[in-house]
Amino acid sequence: MLRILLLVFLAFTLPFTASGQHAGIFISQEDALAIREAQGRYALLDEAISLAKETMEVAFAHPLEVPIPGEAGGYEHERHKQNYREMRYAGLLYSITGEDKYAAFVRDMLNLYAILYPNLGPHPLAHHQKPGKIFHQTLNEEVWLVHTSIAYDCVYDWLSEEERTRFETNIFRPMADWFHIRNKAEFDRIHNHGTWAVAAVGMIAYVMGDLALVEKSLHGSDLDGKGGFLAQLDLLFSPDGYYMEGPYYIRYALMPFFYFAEAVERMQPEVGIYEYRDQILRKAYYAAVQTSFPNGVFPPINDASLTMDVAAPEVILANALTYDRYGEDEDLLGVAKVQGRVSLSGAGLILARDFDASESDPQISWPSVEFSDGSDGTSGGLGILRMGEGMGQSMLLMKYGVHGGGHGHFDKLHFIFFDQGRQVIRDYGFGRWVNVEPKFGGRYLPENDSYAMQTIAHNTVVVDGMTQNMWDEVTAESMSAKRHFFEAEEAHAIAMSARADTYYDGVDMQRTMLLIKDESLLYPVVVDLYRLTSAITRQYDYPLHYSGQNITSNLQFETNTNAMQPLGSGHGYQHIWHTAQARTDSSIQFTWLDGHRYYSLTSSARPESEVHLGRTGANDPDFNLQSHPLLVLRRQAENMLFASVIEPHGYFNEARERSAQARPRITGVNVLGHSDVASVIEITGQEGLHWRIVVSNQSEGVTGRREVTFGDLSFQWTGNYQVEFLGNSEAKN
Amino acid sequence: MLRILLLVFLAFTLPFTASGQHAGIFISQEDALAIREAQGRYALLDEAISLAKETMEVAFAHPLEVPIPGEAGGYEHERHKQNYREMRYAGLLYSITGEDKYAAFVRDMLNLYAILYPNLGPHPLAHHQKPGKIFHQTLNEEVWLVHTSIAYDCVYDWLSEEERTRFETNIFRPMADWFHIRNKAEFDRIHNHGTWAVAAVGMIAYVMGDLALVEKSLHGSDLDGKGGFLAQLDLLFSPDGYYMEGPYYIRYALMPFFYFAEAVERMQPEVGIYEYRDQILRKAYYAAVQTSFPNGVFPPINDASLTMDVAAPEVILANALTYDRYGEDEDLLGVAKVQGRVSLSGAGLILARDFDASESDPQISWPSVEFSDGSDGTSGGLGILRMGEGMGQSMLLMKYGVHGGGHGHFDKLHFIFFDQGRQVIRDYGFGRWVNVEPKFGGRYLPENDSYAMQTIAHNTVVVDGMTQNMWDEVTAESMSAKRHFFEAEEAHAIAMSARADTYYDGVDMQRTMLLIKDESLLYPVVVDLYRLTSAITRQYDYPLHYSGQNITSNLQFETNTNAMQPLGSGHGYQHIWHTAQARTDSSIQFTWLDGHRYYSLTSSARPESEVHLGRTGANDPDFNLQSHPLLVLRRQAENMLFASVIEPHGYFNEARERSAQARPRITGVNVLGHSDVASVIEITGQEGLHWRIVVSNQSEGVTGRREVTFGDLSFQWTGNYQVEFLGNSEAKN
Repeated sequence: MLRILLLVFLAFTLPFTASGQHAGIFISQEDALAIREAQGRYALLDEAISLAKETMEVAFAHPLEVPIPGEAGGYEHERHKQNYREMRYAGLLYSITGEDKYAAFVRDMLNLYAILYPNLGPHPLAHHQKPGKIFHQTLNEEVWLVHTSIAYDCVYDWLSEEERTRFETNIFRPMADWFHIRNKAEFDRIHNHGTWAVAAVGMIAYVMGDLALVEKSLHGSDLDGKGGFLAQLDLLFSPDGYYMEGPYYIRYALMPFFYFAEAVERMQPEVGIYEYRDQILRKAYYAAVQTSFPNGVFPPINDASLTMDVAAPEVILANALTYDRYGEDEDLLGVAKVQGRVSLSGAGLILARDFDASESDPQISWPSVEFSDGSDGTSGGLGILRMGEGMGQSMLLMKYGVHGGGHGHFDKLHFIFFDQGRQVIRDYGFGRWVNVEPKFGGRYLPENDSYAMQTIAHNTVVVDGMTQNMWDEVTAESMSAKRHFFEAEEAHAIAMSARADTYYDGVDMQRTMLLIKDESLLYPVVVDLYRLTSAITRQYDYPLHYSGQNITSNLQFETNTNAMQPLGSGHGYQHIWHTAQARTDSSIQFTWLDGHRYYSLTSSARPESEVHLGRTGANDPDFNLQSHPLLVLRRQAENMLFASVIEPHGYFNEARERSAQARPRITGVNVLGHSDVASVIEITGQEGLHWRIVVSNQSEGVTGRREVTFGDLSFQWTGNYQVEFLGNSEAKN
Repeated sequence: MLRILLLVFLAFTLPFTASGQHAGIFISQEDALAIREAQGRYALLDEAISLAKETMEVAFAHPLEVPIPGEAGGYEHERHKQNYREMRYAGLLYSITGEDKYAAFVRDMLNLYAILYPNLGPHPLAHHQKPGKIFHQTLNEEVWLVHTSIAYDCVYDWLSEEERTRFETNIFRPMADWFHIRNKAEFDRIHNHGTWAVAAVGMIAYVMGDLALVEKSLHGSDLDGKGGFLAQLDLLFSPDGYYMEGPYYIRYALMPFFYFAEAVERMQPEVGIYEYRDQILRKAYYAAVQTSFPNGVFPPINDASLTMDVAAPEVILANALTYDRYGEDEDLLGVAKVQGRVSLSGAGLILARDFDASESDPQISWPSVEFSDGSDGTSGGLGILRMGEGMGQSMLLMKYGVHGGGHGHFDKLHFIFFDQGRQVIRDYGFGRWVNVEPKFGGRYLPENDSYAMQTIAHNTVVVDGMTQNMWDEVTAESMSAKRHFFEAEEAHAIAMSARADTYYDGVDMQRTMLLIKDESLLYPVVVDLYRLTSAITRQYDYPLHYSGQNITSNLQFETNTNAMQPLGSGHGYQHIWHTAQARTDSSIQFTWLDGHRYYSLTSSARPESEVHLGRTGANDPDFNLQSHPLLVLRRQAENMLFASVIEPHGYFNEARERSAQARPRITGVNVLGHSDVASVIEITGQEGLHWRIVVSNQSEGVTGRREVTFGDLSFQWTGNYQVEFLGNSEAKN
């Protein structure tokens, strides 16, 4: 409270610097001059300048257009988006080049908005969103104002006072009021929409010199700290910087977080925004990019695109500011290389300069890493195991944190396996065709709820054919999975383990996943021990969502050749065509081909097991779903350990007509026993491959040499897990 | 006949050159020396040398292995294939470097084969193929001998006479006898298998100095000219060089054609093999590569892979020899660029040298082209219309030639549309997973017959739900489609037209396809006029095989949401899941998304039209088929003109969340009339787009100004077709 009062007290002396020059919220006169002088010297900066100039050349070639607002994703919508991009570029280029044509572009565009905006009411096509006036939802309008604030700031001194008054009276003040008064709840919401709102209002307030309004952006509309930027920094991230909605949404939110933070730092350095909460912004940025797959694509946790990557404009912005504000880091130069350009700013200049000066070829080399989840870091987390380098890296990700708000999926203990430069055990992503107007206006589709969010759409066990928490968001938000251990130090066997208890009444679940590199195998393999306990018999469905072509299996499948029905009637099963089934009492092997590599699942024998194959697309009247295959291991049991290996193997090149080792090397997974103390399995394969794996099922803190007995067999180990390479296996742990 | 006698007479003076040195059938001492001296100077040659040396380093690191033969695609099979690759490289590297280790490698390997081969009988796993001994089919064994002949030739002088005698007695003579005596019918067959046979026997015969055996390879085992290499050159190609089996198989056959031709040219230049049949080998090579898509992939005509491309080793070989033997051509330098290396030979050296010396950046720029089909060029053909440059090129291919032998598909008037670097209206390719041992030994699958070859698997009309020629190969071989016209001179509208009559009893078909570039549209569009006439009512199914996601349609589809059956019970329909249907009396619009672009079909209104959507995969117990969508326009009629436009439009980038113009510009196709004289249609769209198209349905030769009347309307035109850009359309023809 003291801090807030102090800030309020300090706040009324801006936005003019000592020199009398209007201060830049994003780029200063010094920055602009330095960029001007650096032109032609640093490739990544030149790329940024070229993009800005090319955008403006196109803009200058067409008449200015500020149309009557239209539907989401439609022409008018896209035109207004392009307008703010062009205004921002024009503002920055005016600062850098000093050429009047750029400033005049911003002025002329704002003149048109100053005519249009006062005549607009709430947008009639808002559907479920809060309406904006220029756009169907306030969110887009806040984005408009974030960008336009920078443009306005850049040309502020160039404009006449009369022009400034007109723009502020006709556009900026009423728009800011619309955001923080009319949409007060959204403005104070601890959510990325709230961040866009406070950034938009705070940034335009700095430019207009309205520091009281800035205070509301920082501390909430009631100045009570329950909403506003600082509360968002407190609550939206775990202490590790992990963003509870997942990487796709933090990617989006990086823009308001960093634009506004940079404005705060420049206008009110005394806030110490970059130091706030032990440098939470630095942690937030690293936690975002360190989740990315080796190809730079963000893993589609919760509602997310399958292709969003670190080359997104928001990440380009945050990469430069993180580098500038938190010090040099070779990894961020590697990110810049993937991005291909820098932010057009002082920070971008520094990054581009250091990139060119780097003697080595900058590379991203993210390590295995675990992030805690929940604002206090005690609500489980996200584990990422990595083996190998660059695009050849294998990456195994398990989700065991919080639900993640309205965009959260009911997918605790879900995993993704990335290999060969792609998701090979995949997440569906969101049910949405972003900005594709004929597809429900580009909004989230009904199938996002009915399929993409459901448990069966993920690689985690479904109990009794029902979605976790019975598809109840409030219940899901009230609990979290729990971390058990995460150990990524060993060279040949790294592991993570987590629990999700009571996501189904009376069912406790523990999943332990290992990435193992036996030198006799070409690629690391995934070992998965998924243990469920229940006092009564349940149906356990263990799904794997893969891609590619079914190749072979040791099972005799009964294929549904002449008629197909859905695999079930609800909880997402109604969207899966049931293509084939098999029954077995023996171990299960199933091989498919994905790209240039074969993959085999080998799973331990259990009596009366079923295997079902399916393909998404049922009950999809508007063709909203994508068509992908999946496999489901099914068994009725009280306690159950699904012990499985996923082995990448061999090589296929259709164009060169080469195929090698189309059958797996690993031939068996044998459960020696499992209890609340430990699970013990053996994995065997050709040429003497033989591993024994012990996983502790007891909480951390049990130390020393430990022992578990199953029947006549006793096993001893220390620590959380132990992998023994026996027989002819070449790797020794 | 005189020529044959003359050749026989000339034939007994080889294979020693004037210098007494054993003559090279593929690489001379002079070639080898020049390559040795050129090392490090030409990138494409260095790449070839590196590949050879790296292959041999791996080979030297492992013990030689000549295993007991195994199943197709299995380890032993692949080992024997690798052995001949290594022997050929070793032979060439011995010639180039003079290092004994390479010659010793060939000798040691042949010693092992000299022990194994005499003990082998016919391979027990031949299934439907002619058995080899080392391999399950003679074909692979012939390939083995082609490569091994070169290796043996390179080290011939280095070997002792005793070794040569042993290899010829134990391997080469009995193997050649197996090919031309035991498998006489295959040896004399006018087919690519026959070409491999005569090349293998002819090449080893040259090295062994058995010119009588060479004669059999050139003129058939009975020396009557009914079989053998020259007969193959006479009969397997049209006068334009088009190979009746299609590009995939000529790609494969390029290797024996060019290896053997080069051997003939070097050993018996008096044959004039490269001049034979008005340079048919030159034409054959160009006809192969000129069919390729802008990305270098061969169009999958008949049984064919979807990914085979000009970087295949066979094309690398033929590219160098064509360049060397037929003179310099900038396009072949462009092909070499895509290939990334040259053949390791004297010809490869010349190509690599000229590539480096080229002042421009070599590019492939194939023009629109039509190839006649049939050995005398009168059996229809293959038309390829192209607009644009490089990877941005649009390419429209129509097939209207002969059936194409055992690999032929029942697909007359089928088309493929390539745009945006991919097949957007696609061919299924073959039903085969080449060399994938668990998939039916890598051989053709039953579904190749039951689906891939059937008419419904192609983009051509199916009459009464039946495959052309009632799936009878003999009938199909007895007829061909006929060319009507092919005109690719105009800048804004190019066209081709062909007929396929009596492929269904009592039904005549004419298809005219245009590629039109209206400057008001971003991309060229396909216009398709498919006309059928019949005295009785038929069911006409017009299929389009596309890729990607259904986006929108003007139809109300009844989607099969909760149960699916196949679209039919035979002729390939049994393999198509029936996903949705619609009925309409109005025009049809259907939009899908494929990659970064939208595509819309707009088809003219006809009463009681049906549209069916489907997806391949039904009646596929072993998961052999790939899952792809298709659309079928269906109508019952006597005479029918399917008049349609396929319009690429807009832009989608999921990662950048951009979408523009997701709806088509073209809104209507209107048939003004069609008769045996002409078809007249109008195409209309937004912003005044308005084209009128007249296509002549009469045979060529009708000249001067022409007129057709439909009801009250009269249309006048000249030539085979006329496209008028009316209204606000920007292009003027």
